[in-house]
Amino acid sequence: LTSALSPDLIIFAERLADAARGAIRPYFRQSFAVETKPNRTPVTIADRAAEEAMRRLITETFPAHGIVGEELGAEREDAEFVWILDPIDGTKSFATGLPIFGTLIALVHDGRPVIGIIDQPILTERWLGVRGRPSLFNGKPAKTRPCSDLANAALFATTFDRFNRSEMARFQKLVEMTSINRLSGDCYAYGLLALGLADVVVDAEMKPHDFAALVPVIEGAGGAIGDWEERPLPMRRPSRVAAVGDPKLFGAVCAVLSGKKI
Amino acid sequence: LTSALSPDLIIFAERLADAARGAIRPYFRQSFAVETKPNRTPVTIADRAAEEAMRRLITETFPAHGIVGEELGAEREDAEFVWILDPIDGTKSFATGLPIFGTLIALVHDGRPVIGIIDQPILTERWLGVRGRPSLFNGKPAKTRPCSDLANAALFATTFDRFNRSEMARFQKLVEMTSINRLSGDCYAYGLLALGLADVVVDAEMKPHDFAALVPVIEGAGGAIGDWEERPLPMRRPSRVAAVGDPKLFGAVCAVLSGKKI
Repeated sequence: LTSALSPDLIIFAERLADAARGAIRPYFRQSFAVETKPNRTPVTIADRAAEEAMRRLITETFPAHGIVGEELGAEREDAEFVWILDPIDGTKSFATGLPIFGTLIALVHDGRPVIGIIDQPILTERWLGVRGRPSLFNGKPAKTRPCSDLANAALFATTFDRFNRSEMARFQKLVEMTSINRLSGDCYAYGLLALGLADVVVDAEMKPHDFAALVPVIEGAGGAIGDWEERPLPMRRPSRVAAVGDPKLFGAVCAVLSGKKI
Repeated sequence: LTSALSPDLIIFAERLADAARGAIRPYFRQSFAVETKPNRTPVTIADRAAEEAMRRLITETFPAHGIVGEELGAEREDAEFVWILDPIDGTKSFATGLPIFGTLIALVHDGRPVIGIIDQPILTERWLGVRGRPSLFNGKPAKTRPCSDLANAALFATTFDRFNRSEMARFQKLVEMTSINRLSGDCYAYGLLALGLADVVVDAEMKPHDFAALVPVIEGAGGAIGDWEERPLPMRRPSRVAAVGDPKLFGAVCAVLSGKKI
């Protein structure tokens, strides 16, 4: 891996995040009367502009690399290196002016995510994860906190409205077992977990562009992330997601989520 | 009113917000292992420090004014001028490092809120409302947007977990009638409404320190705010709260919330 993952790729991943920032920032809080146009429009424009900017850079610099983007589809998906892009994760936050959405950038090598970036373009906050290295938050080490008891845990769900009835019941069980909970947060919640400010983040079924970038960030900060059955997240199909700051909690969280403890 | 509300009081209200900022910022994201201490502690310290700083300034400068604070109680509640303070509205956000909590400062004159401030100490964002004047966001005019049709509206609930079963059913009806919804946001949601980025904000029963400051901000931005029965908010007892950016929506929203349309 070390030979395959040249430092150039890490620098390049940050260039992609910079490009997305430049594309997104002009559209933030550009509201207009909801009468004239649907209020999703600035999101759509910013979303596409950011993905186009990133795709252009990848195609120019690494024409052999694959690209899977939330907005504009997949190309060369079987390449050795594949970039998985979500220009705006948290479109409702973007649309309502909440600066807690994020740009997600992952580099997948032979099916495993080796670089992950969570970037908040408005607050200029960036989490960088590289497989096998400590994660960084704006250049400084990001570390999860110890929390070996669910009763002390701060729990986030970023999209609990997508839970089906049975998932909701199991999640509700987790709410009852934890200390505080927040039922929103988008990808920013995973960033807070990587900073040792939250202990558990749970998501219903998401696509790889929603979670690929999170893996190196969470793991490099000392946490654990996987599906609800404690397995590594798949990079080519949807999955439900659970992340913990303290890996000791992972089994207990997944036991509740997978229904073993209800 | 104009003679009673001297410009000094507006400048002084901003001084209070500055003092709260200074007290709160050092405690933000000061996390530590949840094992050693309950993770509410930095919130409690920051909350008390901010309220103490504001109370000290009020007592020094306007000893005849009353003070009602979320943390440290009420004094001279029957004074002509009463300051209503919530040093950290959104303690869960503060505790988990989400910069969308706020300091709420209201000045009530003869029972009516005449100055309101929503301050976000980390993002250094401040909404200032003065009765009868246009509201300001960091010194620039803040205006709600037109939205005369619920079907186009962006809806926030800041504390929907406090809804009882019947309130939840009515709120759910509103979710179904609107275009997008966010089920969190603390006082920041009201700020976004005042910026024309959201259209409806709903809250279950709150105390005056949760809503007094919102009134001059929302009204001065062109919106409407009241209880679920379309009445002005009381300054000395709890109330449920509804706010709209476009006053034309207020009747329809309150009809659903008060159960007239379910």
